Amino acid sequence: MTTAAPGALIPADARAMFRDGTNVPTAGWCAAYTQVNLIAVPAHWAYDVLLFCQRNPKPCPVLDVTEPGSWSTSLAPCADLRTDAPRYRVWENGRLIDEPSDVTGAWRSDLVTFLIGCSFSFETALAQAGVPLRHVDQGRNVAMYKTNRDCRPAGRLQGPLVVSMRQIPAGLVDTAIRVSTLMPEVHGSPVHVGDPAALGIEDLAHPDFGDPVRAEPGDVPVFWACGVTPQAVLMASRPSFAITHAPGYMLITDARDTDYRLG
Amino acid sequence: MTTAAPGALIPADARAMFRDGTNVPTAGWCAAYTQVNLIAVPAHWAYDVLLFCQRNPKPCPVLDVTEPGSWSTSLAPCADLRTDAPRYRVWENGRLIDEPSDVTGAWRSDLVTFLIGCSFSFETALAQAGVPLRHVDQGRNVAMYKTNRDCRPAGRLQGPLVVSMRQIPAGLVDTAIRVSTLMPEVHGSPVHVGDPAALGIEDLAHPDFGDPVRAEPGDVPVFWACGVTPQAVLMASRPSFAITHAPGYMLITDARDTDYRLG
Repeated sequence: MTTAAPGALIPADARAMFRDGTNVPTAGWCAAYTQVNLIAVPAHWAYDVLLFCQRNPKPCPVLDVTEPGSWSTSLAPCADLRTDAPRYRVWENGRLIDEPSDVTGAWRSDLVTFLIGCSFSFETALAQAGVPLRHVDQGRNVAMYKTNRDCRPAGRLQGPLVVSMRQIPAGLVDTAIRVSTLMPEVHGSPVHVGDPAALGIEDLAHPDFGDPVRAEPGDVPVFWACGVTPQAVLMASRPSFAITHAPGYMLITDARDTDYRLG
Repeated sequence: MTTAAPGALIPADARAMFRDGTNVPTAGWCAAYTQVNLIAVPAHWAYDVLLFCQRNPKPCPVLDVTEPGSWSTSLAPCADLRTDAPRYRVWENGRLIDEPSDVTGAWRSDLVTFLIGCSFSFETALAQAGVPLRHVDQGRNVAMYKTNRDCRPAGRLQGPLVVSMRQIPAGLVDTAIRVSTLMPEVHGSPVHVGDPAALGIEDLAHPDFGDPVRAEPGDVPVFWACGVTPQAVLMASRPSFAITHAPGYMLITDARDTDYRLG
């Protein structure tokens, strides 16, 4: 077993740890490698999901789509999509029925898997630009919230935008916006800066997904469109079956964050 | 009838002219407004087209997808997709059967229409940055070429990348790259600079689509992924029916080019 810090691991070693049972959120793991959201649906749902993503590119930047039944991706050719995320969710009729670390037994030959960009991908760029990552420093998952903003519907899918929130020192908000704007395939620029109530978020201390994250004095909450959005929207429309990652427990690919960086 | 120069027209007036029979390429029309490629296919082809676009985002940046049978788009709410491009192509089994200026009579209730970004959208930004547009100055359509690079296949769709070419003064190539890089939803950065043979293009004087464009002394050919790619690939796979715009005869939307500009 490796003794490297999570941030210094290469993706193949991190995935091997998850395959062997390590079961933790992946924020801060494998610095500079691209983490993705995973959604696997029966093929007859695939068009609705892909169209929903096209119509809502900020929360749903699709980085890869598999052939039906396949458990491999061009983003990480040696990875097994059924075992290599640290934690999954298995859904029936929109109801969460299991949260295992391996979904090999639940896999089906008609599943089309969508891999969707994750805001963790711009966190390395934020850190390099001197922006502190409070949730990483506090050893927590990022905080995610359902908002009062509706996504553009597609087929059977409709529902609210989910955002991730980072507490950013006021003097670095412009840097955080500039850095993330240049990574449009991993959520891009923030959707809102400042007042949580403007997004319908009542209490930052009670996120809908992930962990509450403590602000430091002078911090401003900054909100980015979140890749949990399609998972939340999909489950609200109750497909007969689906498999997703657990929020914050991402698949770590071999793609570099810089592959998705324009500047 | 308006007497404004084409570049100074607003999109609604340009569309009205096309609806009334004006039948010309749209390069240089309605400066600062977003022009799009149009592809309408029977619904049972829509997933393949959308997946092909996801897998080949540089040639195929999808800006909108309609509901089946609809002839309207959020990009231009008052436009009629059946009449408002200057020239269409009607295809049966991959064979071009008509090139009319109105496809109202050919429209079908199962057609899903894809509107795909166009490199004309970054031409205003290029011009503002001082980059001359040789094809506009010469009153010609842009030159487009099939290349020896294969797109990533999706379902029934596979085929080569098509590129548009602009002759750029050598000292302005860096500017052209910087400006277009910041518009990733309208093809983004070039795919190649310099040698046409590297893309399998034998003779710049004989484009596969559009018009040949004369170089000025000191110009370098710069190649961008082109929205004609999905049309060429789709027709090679011979769907029973399809309607597209004619290359270079684009739909002009009400969206601003700056909507697709990051910097």
